[in-house]
Amino acid sequence: MTARQQAVTVLGLGSMGSALAAALLDRGHPTTVWNRSPDKAQPLVERGACAAATPEAAIAAAPLVIACVLDYEALRTVVDPAAAALKGRTLVNLTSGSPEQAREAVAWAGSHGADYLDGAIMTTPPGVGDPAMMFLYSGSQELFETHRPILAALGDPLYLGADPGLASLYDAALLGLMWSTMTGWLHGTALVGAEGTAATDFTPVAIRWLTAVAGFLTTYAPQVDAGRYPGDDATVDVQIAAIGHLIHAAAARGIDNALPELLKTAMEKASAAGHGQDSYASLIEVLRSAPGD
Amino acid sequence: MTARQQAVTVLGLGSMGSALAAALLDRGHPTTVWNRSPDKAQPLVERGACAAATPEAAIAAAPLVIACVLDYEALRTVVDPAAAALKGRTLVNLTSGSPEQAREAVAWAGSHGADYLDGAIMTTPPGVGDPAMMFLYSGSQELFETHRPILAALGDPLYLGADPGLASLYDAALLGLMWSTMTGWLHGTALVGAEGTAATDFTPVAIRWLTAVAGFLTTYAPQVDAGRYPGDDATVDVQIAAIGHLIHAAAARGIDNALPELLKTAMEKASAAGHGQDSYASLIEVLRSAPGD
Repeated sequence: MTARQQAVTVLGLGSMGSALAAALLDRGHPTTVWNRSPDKAQPLVERGACAAATPEAAIAAAPLVIACVLDYEALRTVVDPAAAALKGRTLVNLTSGSPEQAREAVAWAGSHGADYLDGAIMTTPPGVGDPAMMFLYSGSQELFETHRPILAALGDPLYLGADPGLASLYDAALLGLMWSTMTGWLHGTALVGAEGTAATDFTPVAIRWLTAVAGFLTTYAPQVDAGRYPGDDATVDVQIAAIGHLIHAAAARGIDNALPELLKTAMEKASAAGHGQDSYASLIEVLRSAPGD
Repeated sequence: MTARQQAVTVLGLGSMGSALAAALLDRGHPTTVWNRSPDKAQPLVERGACAAATPEAAIAAAPLVIACVLDYEALRTVVDPAAAALKGRTLVNLTSGSPEQAREAVAWAGSHGADYLDGAIMTTPPGVGDPAMMFLYSGSQELFETHRPILAALGDPLYLGADPGLASLYDAALLGLMWSTMTGWLHGTALVGAEGTAATDFTPVAIRWLTAVAGFLTTYAPQVDAGRYPGDDATVDVQIAAIGHLIHAAAARGIDNALPELLKTAMEKASAAGHGQDSYASLIEVLRSAPGD
C-alpha cells in the first residue's frame, strides 16, 4: 500500500551503526549492510537486511550510503579500496571526528565523484529512530533536502549550514555540555546521597531545575552575542559567595570538589577581570582567553 | 469578593526579599516589610506594603515571618534583639546557608518559642511569583502544610523532608548542577562562536539537547542507587575517546580547556578504577572518594 521506500546502505555495524540500520529497516527501507566482522550483520539480516560481502558491493547497492565507523581513518580504510563504486552516490558520514576532518572529507569524496554530507548523532543507540532525538547535518543544503526523508527515519534531522565542519563542531560543543551537566548532577547526587537521599528522589528535582537553567541560558545567549552582561538577576560575585556553601557542604561529606573548585576559579577570574557585577554569562570572556594566548 | 488573605511579614529587602514581598502583595496578602536601610521599603509601600520601623514591630505584625537576609549571622543580628516578638509565630527562613546552620536554627527559633521552616529559592528575583519556579522547604511537614497556601504565592512549594537541612543541601547540589551546566554551555558557545555561530543560534539546540541529557540522568539515577552501572548506551572509555575531539577542537580555537580537561581526568580515574566499560554514572564512585579520604 505504501510507496516503495528508497534503498540505503549502512557501513559499520557497531552498536550505533546497527541501530541506524535497524531504524531504516523499521521504516521499510531496503537496507544493505556491511561490517568488517560479518557476524554483526546477522541480527539485521534476520530483520530483513541484505548483508554485502565487501564494502564495494554494499556501496553499489544503494544511491545513499551512511557510514558510521570508529573514526575517519577507519572510514578511508573501508571506502578507499571501494572508491570506484562511490561515483554518483551520496555519502552521509555519521562517524565522529573533527570539523577539519569533515571539511577534508568533502574534497576526498568529491575526488571519487561522490557527494558528501557530514552528520552527528545526538543520542545513544537506544534513542535512534526516536523522532525526538536530534541528528545534526552540515554541508550542501540541496543534498540535505534531497535525502531528508530517509534521514528522518533515524531521528529529527537538523540542518546547521553549508560549512561541513558544523555538525562536528556542534557535536563537540553539545557533548561538552552533556559531560559538564552529567558531572554536576553526579556531584549533587553524591552530596544529597551523603545524607541519605536516593538518586531517584533527587533526579526529578534536578531535571525540573534544568528547565529553569535553560531559561537562564535563553536570557544569557543574547548577552553573549552583544558582549554585554547585565547582572540584573544574579551577579558573578553573588555566585562566588554561593559556591562557597557548596564547596563547604561537599568537603564536609568527603566528596571530591575538583569540579566546583574549578568553577569557582573561573568565576574569580571573571570577577578579577571586572565582571563581578555582571551576569554569569560574562565568564565566556575568560574562557575565550586561554592561558596559551 | 475574595476571602481575606493572611498577613505576612518579610524581613530583608535585597533584590530577592523585595521580589518575595512584591509577589505576596500581588496575591493580596497584607504584607509588612522591614529592611536595615529603610529606603528599600519605599517601592513596596507604594504597592501597598506596610513598612515597620523595627524588626520587632515587623515580626509582631503577622503570624508568619519570612526572612531573606545576607546570611545566618545577619539573621541573628536582626532577630535576636526582637526575639520576644517571635513567640508563637512561624519563621520561614529563605536565607542561604548550610544544612548545619538550618539544623541549628530550629533549636534557636524554638528557644524563642517560634516554629521554624527552612527553605531555598530556586529562581532569580525576576522568577519569584512564577508558579513554574521551585521553592524547596524542609522541616516539620505539618508546618509546611499549614503555610503552603501563602508559600504558593512565591512559587511552587516542594516539601523535601523532616530534616531541616535538606533544603540547603538540595540548594547547594542544584546550584552546582547549574554552574556546571552554564559553564559547559559557555564553553560550547565559545567553541561554535569561534566559527561564527551566534549564541542565540546555538542555544536553542543546546536546550533541546539538555532534554536528551535529562533522559540520560533518568536512566542513570537508578544505576547510582543500585551501585551498578551497565554501559549499554555508552561506556566511560567511549566518552574518553570522544572528549579528546572536544579538547582538540577547543584548543585549536584558543578556548580555555580547564573544564573538559578536568572532566577527562575524572573519566580516566573512573576507567582506571575498573569502570571503563560502565556507564558515565559510575563516575560517582570516584567523586565519593575525595583525595582527602
